Amino acid sequence: MAAALRLHPDRFFSPDPAVRRVARDLYEAVADLPLVCPHGHVPPALLAEDAPFPEPTALLITPDHYIFRMLYSQGISMEAMGIPTRDGAAVEADPRAVWQRFADHYHLFLGTPTRAWLDQTFAEVFDVDVKLDADTAMEVYDAIDEKLAEPNFRPRALFDRFNIDVLTTTDGAADSLEHHAAIRDSDWGGRVIPCFRPDAVFRIASPEWAGEMARLGEAAGEEVTDYAGFVRVLEDRRAFFKSMGATSTDHAVVDPLTHRLDDPEADRLLQRALRGEATAADQAAFEAHMLMEMARMSTEDGLVMQLHPGSFRDHNERVFRRFGRDMGGDIPVATEYTRNLRALLNAYGTDPRLTLVAFTLDESTYSRELAPLAGHYPAMRLGPAWWFFDSIEGMRRYRQLTTETAGLYNTAGFNDDTRAFLSIPARHDLSRRVDANYLAELVAEHRLDEEDAHGLIGALAVGLARDTYNLGDGVPETLLDVSADGEAR
Amino acid sequence: MAAALRLHPDRFFSPDPAVRRVARDLYEAVADLPLVCPHGHVPPALLAEDAPFPEPTALLITPDHYIFRMLYSQGISMEAMGIPTRDGAAVEADPRAVWQRFADHYHLFLGTPTRAWLDQTFAEVFDVDVKLDADTAMEVYDAIDEKLAEPNFRPRALFDRFNIDVLTTTDGAADSLEHHAAIRDSDWGGRVIPCFRPDAVFRIASPEWAGEMARLGEAAGEEVTDYAGFVRVLEDRRAFFKSMGATSTDHAVVDPLTHRLDDPEADRLLQRALRGEATAADQAAFEAHMLMEMARMSTEDGLVMQLHPGSFRDHNERVFRRFGRDMGGDIPVATEYTRNLRALLNAYGTDPRLTLVAFTLDESTYSRELAPLAGHYPAMRLGPAWWFFDSIEGMRRYRQLTTETAGLYNTAGFNDDTRAFLSIPARHDLSRRVDANYLAELVAEHRLDEEDAHGLIGALAVGLARDTYNLGDGVPETLLDVSADGEAR
Amino acid sequence: MAAALRLHPDRFFSPDPAVRRVARDLYEAVADLPLVCPHGHVPPALLAEDAPFPEPTALLITPDHYIFRMLYSQGISMEAMGIPTRDGAAVEADPRAVWQRFADHYHLFLGTPTRAWLDQTFAEVFDVDVKLDADTAMEVYDAIDEKLAEPNFRPRALFDRFNIDVLTTTDGAADSLEHHAAIRDSDWGGRVIPCFRPDAVFRIASPEWAGEMARLGEAAGEEVTDYAGFVRVLEDRRAFFKSMGATSTDHAVVDPLTHRLDDPEADRLLQRALRGEATAADQAAFEAHMLMEMARMSTEDGLVMQLHPGSFRDHNERVFRRFGRDMGGDIPVATEYTRNLRALLNAYGTDPRLTLVAFTLDESTYSRELAPLAGHYPAMRLGPAWWFFDSIEGMRRYRQLTTETAGLYNTAGFNDDTRAFLSIPARHDLSRRVDANYLAELVAEHRLDEEDAHGLIGALAVGLARDTYNLGDGVPETLLDVSADGEAR
Repeated sequence: MAAALRLHPDRFFSPDPAVRRVARDLYEAVADLPLVCPHGHVPPALLAEDAPFPEPTALLITPDHYIFRMLYSQGISMEAMGIPTRDGAAVEADPRAVWQRFADHYHLFLGTPTRAWLDQTFAEVFDVDVKLDADTAMEVYDAIDEKLAEPNFRPRALFDRFNIDVLTTTDGAADSLEHHAAIRDSDWGGRVIPCFRPDAVFRIASPEWAGEMARLGEAAGEEVTDYAGFVRVLEDRRAFFKSMGATSTDHAVVDPLTHRLDDPEADRLLQRALRGEATAADQAAFEAHMLMEMARMSTEDGLVMQLHPGSFRDHNERVFRRFGRDMGGDIPVATEYTRNLRALLNAYGTDPRLTLVAFTLDESTYSRELAPLAGHYPAMRLGPAWWFFDSIEGMRRYRQLTTETAGLYNTAGFNDDTRAFLSIPARHDLSRRVDANYLAELVAEHRLDEEDAHGLIGALAVGLARDTYNLGDGVPETLLDVSADGEAR
Repeated sequence: MAAALRLHPDRFFSPDPAVRRVARDLYEAVADLPLVCPHGHVPPALLAEDAPFPEPTALLITPDHYIFRMLYSQGISMEAMGIPTRDGAAVEADPRAVWQRFADHYHLFLGTPTRAWLDQTFAEVFDVDVKLDADTAMEVYDAIDEKLAEPNFRPRALFDRFNIDVLTTTDGAADSLEHHAAIRDSDWGGRVIPCFRPDAVFRIASPEWAGEMARLGEAAGEEVTDYAGFVRVLEDRRAFFKSMGATSTDHAVVDPLTHRLDDPEADRLLQRALRGEATAADQAAFEAHMLMEMARMSTEDGLVMQLHPGSFRDHNERVFRRFGRDMGGDIPVATEYTRNLRALLNAYGTDPRLTLVAFTLDESTYSRELAPLAGHYPAMRLGPAWWFFDSIEGMRRYRQLTTETAGLYNTAGFNDDTRAFLSIPARHDLSRRVDANYLAELVAEHRLDEEDAHGLIGALAVGLARDTYNLGDGVPETLLDVSADGEAR
Repeated sequence: MAAALRLHPDRFFSPDPAVRRVARDLYEAVADLPLVCPHGHVPPALLAEDAPFPEPTALLITPDHYIFRMLYSQGISMEAMGIPTRDGAAVEADPRAVWQRFADHYHLFLGTPTRAWLDQTFAEVFDVDVKLDADTAMEVYDAIDEKLAEPNFRPRALFDRFNIDVLTTTDGAADSLEHHAAIRDSDWGGRVIPCFRPDAVFRIASPEWAGEMARLGEAAGEEVTDYAGFVRVLEDRRAFFKSMGATSTDHAVVDPLTHRLDDPEADRLLQRALRGEATAADQAAFEAHMLMEMARMSTEDGLVMQLHPGSFRDHNERVFRRFGRDMGGDIPVATEYTRNLRALLNAYGTDPRLTLVAFTLDESTYSRELAPLAGHYPAMRLGPAWWFFDSIEGMRRYRQLTTETAGLYNTAGFNDDTRAFLSIPARHDLSRRVDANYLAELVAEHRLDEEDAHGLIGALAVGLARDTYNLGDGVPETLLDVSADGEAR
């Protein structure tokens, strides 16, 4: 007989009764609040087109590199999981075969957030009531497949059912934002906004740079031939994104070096790049400079600046060549913030118009660098536990390592950072549970009064994300009051 | 109605009943022991003059960079908090306005050690019984202000009431120690001793170096014109500090590089500095060399050597230029000990006359470098969790990351490292509670017998600090026995 | 009256009743399983000769650098502990005096794994029932000494009593493996197999290299005069080790840099070394290249490749000069894996024939680098918590920092890595308890179903070690099923 899939109502809470009671109370206070999603990777076309989802494998397995990364690590080829190759070489084409293979190896995910998210998605979104394993694979597949045919399982219906308050996508600098426009122009009221992510046009030594610049020039209606034009075009694109609802930008670099060049030097680098001669060192200098420029522009247009450093992309060349980017082969590296961010923070970190949200894949920087920086510079907030650390233990360490130095109000609230649309409720729920349990532990150790914990949990669940990303429209009064509004900022 | 301020008698203990019972017993055994304070920043003039404290804001808020750092990070300007500027530009002059502003934002400190220390200070030193918030701000201010007028709230009376056994200050190499002399010459019996901190005269590339050297020459009665004279003067000053009761020296560097130069090379660097030509590289070499010299002198005069590396001072230039040093803008950097300390430890680390107490702001070094080094070299002890980590979670991690490799006896005991005189009892109390809870967890997990835990808690609370810093006068018999007195050391 | 030595049946389990109940159940399911020991340093002569052990000090104290390191750190000289000097200078010769000295300072080990292992060894191997301290020292010594005279306390009898399934030793590339041969040829059925560790012949700048190479040439029957010959000899030696039962190789480096040289360049370095002219930089390049070659050979002969980087050997020169290697003076350094291992992983990390087990002494790499790498590359497994971290807290952190990214199945199972033969059962027992408690916490927090935990505990205790190191002979059916056998690997 198949084992029952049950989500324990107290899951992720401490077993200690004194903690659990408080954790449950705190969680219940926020469990049904709307989901604020200020950073993520859901394709806007999904909500623009509102087409029915394909079958379960294409929905849940093939696009999720958390899943096939783990299977690959245990010798299941990506071809066997139906991941499309760049050159169109044949891969497993039968979605049921892929699903069965996934189910056969679902034990690999025991103890991981991927399994927690999926189980909750199965149970709460699709009413699946058996545990997925080799035997139940097809039963679960069919149950999900059947639901997907219903109209209330279309993207917009789910968006509404998930109670998503706002969903931010991530979009290249040259993006037309046509899907965002389509959503706006539709009769559907869901709030889906873009985020300006111009990395590709800062990577001047990349083979893809010329193409990206061409697209950027096209989008802006002005070919970039010098640095002044580049700045003009970027400002123009930011203004366009803002007009489409954007409240933020996002920047991925390996090292978060910040350093201002003078304009002639920036132009020399750009000219070199336009001639196809830029080196890796040129790019590093240019990126460091452009982070300064992005901060400057943020002080002028008010877009919140996000910094996501520390990922060595496409570490596995074979996977990259065969399958492309974002295929589970990105590996973190040690990251330095204190010296690297100094130029930016000295130039703009005390400017009341800037909010800089910094993320990390190097947890040793939480207590050493990031909490001290966020606990000092007015502009800086600490992004939530990111990527590999968007997990139960990861979030616990995040709070334990940052709260005592930075407090809770210098953190940026939760974001789900996901392209897996179906997993959004599960991810927020997990975060709310972990934060409730964290506060409950403080209460049970008499480090925090219970009434203060109740005041904080709303901020952690919703308020800080809204406040950090200027997503305050329609914020309930009780949650608005989450940040100090100092006179001098 | 204002909420009551209550300090729970079991605060900071695990909620688990098996742990809590033992933690309480262990804590009670040491709760009333005298406070040994071997490292701190209380101005000795405070106890020399024994003048009444000013009103609450000047006492508790304005001098505490933990407080205004957090407010500043949330947009409250330092001017609005009444922090005096270097150029005398006007700042908020009304202490009640500053106090109100602090109380308005006291929620920012929820979950931080600053709030734990302040609440305990309010409750236990000043008998305040309402929680500080925007509404109770003036009531709390008045209650404290009233107490401060009483004679038993003068510094010496509080020192005695706090049951401080010995208080070590931190003093520059050129300091006259006149306040220490005045305390000695007074009829008050409190033990206040200096610590020799010569950093300023080792920073040969600093614009302030020439002035520091002039003061040093004056204090020593000998102008320094060469390296031999520099060594002579330092030895002379150390002897003077020792004659005034000092048992230790303290050294702050960014990187703890140690490396001996030959004397002619050291002299070349000093000559370059005297001509105002020393570079940053010169300074790094000179500091690395002077750490070797300080260790050598310690083997001769017996002063315990403390090393505090890893802080990037004055990261925020704007704050530094406007307000000066120690204003909350110091940020840690990654720190290396294994290679950097090797020269010093090979030269002096097995010398039974040296004690080297190493601190860190880079917690990744606890288990990787510092516990292995302290668990091997006879001269080395691990300083307590420092600065940002002088906190509940910080102290827990410290014990969890170091005990299994270094044991408890290679740690240096607690020190409060504070300039906030009023917070001293709260800081020691918190440390004693966290250590009691740590040992109680070992007991509850059957990793330590309860009777052994009782033998250890006195060492952690008092004995190790006395033993490490040679502050043994009047140590109760039962606490003296905290270190192995091996035959060969 | 002497205190009783009692091993609590629930030791190392959480005091929380909900966790403890499950931990106890899980532990009991594996407590009596055979011990799989795929990596360690027991001298094979011990089991080849099967001579009675000497008295307790020579058995338990003198060979264990965990013990004398701690004593040395508190001023007990190594001479006083009877550690033999290289030059034969006299040291303490009375084993009872050494034992008494150890017992006098046994409190230094409170809270350390060394004490946990020793107490369990005293109690379970020797039926000692009093706590070791200054007063009971001779009583405990005599009790152990008496047992050691019994025939069932000889090495082979203990090996059988300990229920050791297989014991892997560590052996130099030139080793004759005569003791392994003797064991094979004996009538005793214990499985003792070698591991190929060729570090010494890769250290081309070491003063000992020429001697090592001479021994290698002798063992292989071919003098090495060029790089092609070097490769031939290594392949030959690996084949010989394999024929003697080896399933693995082991490689210790400071930095795990991997980088392939072309053969002429490798030969140039080797020629320089043969002329005695190789530099430290030459050695670094050669070691980086030889790791690539070792991986290549592993893909051909199937030996599992182990990598143990990050130890700065012989940090204390005085101890090294006087006492030699492995004397407690090895100190970890920060270690980088993402960039360093890239060449190797790109060349061989997706080859189904390779298993690479990576260890670390830098815990900051668990979540940042090692779990992401092991959670992606098919060839890579994460070795267990190593050396300083082979401890209760160390193992907890290991699981908490790696499981959510790499899962449990990308870890390599436990190994005891010890030269202390008597401590082997205690070490496995501790590991099984800690893993049982870890899974029990997941169960109590509803992150793992109890039946799944029962499926996993056997893998953690035995199955993963067998699977990783190809030690599967005689594996119970229920434990075999611990790894995904993907079609594509």
